[in-house]
Amino acid sequence: MKISVLGCGRWGSFIAWYLNRTGHEVTLYGRPGSKRMAGFLQTRMNGLVTLPGSVRLTCDLKEAAEAETLVISVGSQSLRGLMGELCQLKLPAKCYVLCMKGLENSTGERLSEVAGEFLGDNDEIAVWLGPGHVQEFTRGIPNCMVIDSVHPATKERLVGEFSGELIRFYFGNDLIGNEVGAAAKNVIGIAAGMLDGYRLSSLKGALMSRGTREIARLIKAMGGNELSAYGLCHLGDYEATVFSPYSHNRQFGESFVKGERYTELAEGYYTVEALLLLEQKYAVELPICRAVYDVLYRGRDPQRTLDGLFLRSLKREF
Amino acid sequence: MKISVLGCGRWGSFIAWYLNRTGHEVTLYGRPGSKRMAGFLQTRMNGLVTLPGSVRLTCDLKEAAEAETLVISVGSQSLRGLMGELCQLKLPAKCYVLCMKGLENSTGERLSEVAGEFLGDNDEIAVWLGPGHVQEFTRGIPNCMVIDSVHPATKERLVGEFSGELIRFYFGNDLIGNEVGAAAKNVIGIAAGMLDGYRLSSLKGALMSRGTREIARLIKAMGGNELSAYGLCHLGDYEATVFSPYSHNRQFGESFVKGERYTELAEGYYTVEALLLLEQKYAVELPICRAVYDVLYRGRDPQRTLDGLFLRSLKREF
Repeated sequence: MKISVLGCGRWGSFIAWYLNRTGHEVTLYGRPGSKRMAGFLQTRMNGLVTLPGSVRLTCDLKEAAEAETLVISVGSQSLRGLMGELCQLKLPAKCYVLCMKGLENSTGERLSEVAGEFLGDNDEIAVWLGPGHVQEFTRGIPNCMVIDSVHPATKERLVGEFSGELIRFYFGNDLIGNEVGAAAKNVIGIAAGMLDGYRLSSLKGALMSRGTREIARLIKAMGGNELSAYGLCHLGDYEATVFSPYSHNRQFGESFVKGERYTELAEGYYTVEALLLLEQKYAVELPICRAVYDVLYRGRDPQRTLDGLFLRSLKREF
Repeated sequence: MKISVLGCGRWGSFIAWYLNRTGHEVTLYGRPGSKRMAGFLQTRMNGLVTLPGSVRLTCDLKEAAEAETLVISVGSQSLRGLMGELCQLKLPAKCYVLCMKGLENSTGERLSEVAGEFLGDNDEIAVWLGPGHVQEFTRGIPNCMVIDSVHPATKERLVGEFSGELIRFYFGNDLIGNEVGAAAKNVIGIAAGMLDGYRLSSLKGALMSRGTREIARLIKAMGGNELSAYGLCHLGDYEATVFSPYSHNRQFGESFVKGERYTELAEGYYTVEALLLLEQKYAVELPICRAVYDVLYRGRDPQRTLDGLFLRSLKREF
């Protein structure tokens, strides 16, 4: 398959490496001026993956967009801009695979909704979600992930083409649940980091139990399958997000409460804004998301807010 | 409240320490000949807790059984024997609080069922379950736990009397789900340890997602609320069981696949036998429990069995 990966960050460059290894003809695109792409053009490395010569590198979006399948891995809030650029190219029908875990913070839209606004009836959209860290995949440690799409044939084709020894794909059956679940796990990851920062890591058990529950409620209210919160996209990604030292979101939460600077992209920081829009729109209670929001955006004291969440007065579980 | 804690292992002695600290009149019982009790009688310490002089120590079951509330923390497979001994004492009606996470391996019975066989209509039975490690509680790190009972008044009273700064209790509403969930988490803990032993820890995400799912199915088939698998008793205890270095079950699984000796009680080793009885009785599929059983009892190759579980052929999630 001829595939272009748009976005050359940690995950995008790994995907290019992985799909090339799985036998596809891969181009990796980075926007003009991207420091990361400059690094790849110079050394073909980023400290995590080394891209073989068979992966074509380009900063020309038009050239990248020639592939039949475009796998997109940019910051979630940059998707709208990228889709606008692609739209101007007046491309024939293609398959778009979104690999980000986020929601648009200004609208609360799922990323397949954002992309859909720019695409025609003959275009296909899929998402590729679930657990796995680049650092572990490149050491040969396999994981399970999910591909979902409203088009069954697209899903079948992508799962067949993308599966390999390192990544075993499951077919998702709930695009709403999978997208919302995947995005929301980053917010739970930030809360986990905050608990770690206060040496309250043992409360991550209660966080998992109550975090999955509130996301399940939201997914259900949005018309998805509440069980998706307990699937690979959300709970299945907690090992990587709530416990792993590699998680940007967990580390961001920990650094935040310790007053340390942290400069990596933590998608959950933006996603939590979107989740609060959805909380209002669908009239569901999201106490953990709200607590994270209050701490990050409204200056609430994190320790008090976390205490209030997990250790408040006696109550029933369900 | 006058309380006796029967069982002086890691958890029982912690409970005695905790309930004494919460303002109760506490007696700790260890069976005659117990090495642990001998240690407490000599030094009042076990390396984890130091029991103040106000905690009475005894090896006389009759003396211990004078308290109005008996909190039981013995190995799950020893409960039937202990209940038989208590029965012979022809005690007046009392409240029995079971603090173990297990099922009877020869019958598949829940522990409240085992205890119930020995008790009268005026006796009350409750369970005290959920996450938390002695090592963390004694360092002052709080956690949330659950008390459940078929008697609402018992639950109310115990939650009121037992709550303190260190442990915030939730009221359980599903005795079947809470008992089965709490017992089953030890089996998931063994599976987690096996993954750790093969440096496949990143598959613990998929393990959590699929482990909760199969236990939810079992609980539902048994007449409980499937959501309990996602509550404090099961998923809420994964931090402590699937990730913590203090977990006996996780460590047992890891040591097993590494061929190392491990001598601490791993309740999951017995529970998995009971779960396979329940799998058959209620006709539900428990692939993870079955895999753990096959490895522990039938000599199956652990790595192959785990691979088969998580990395088998493409399929749908729910």
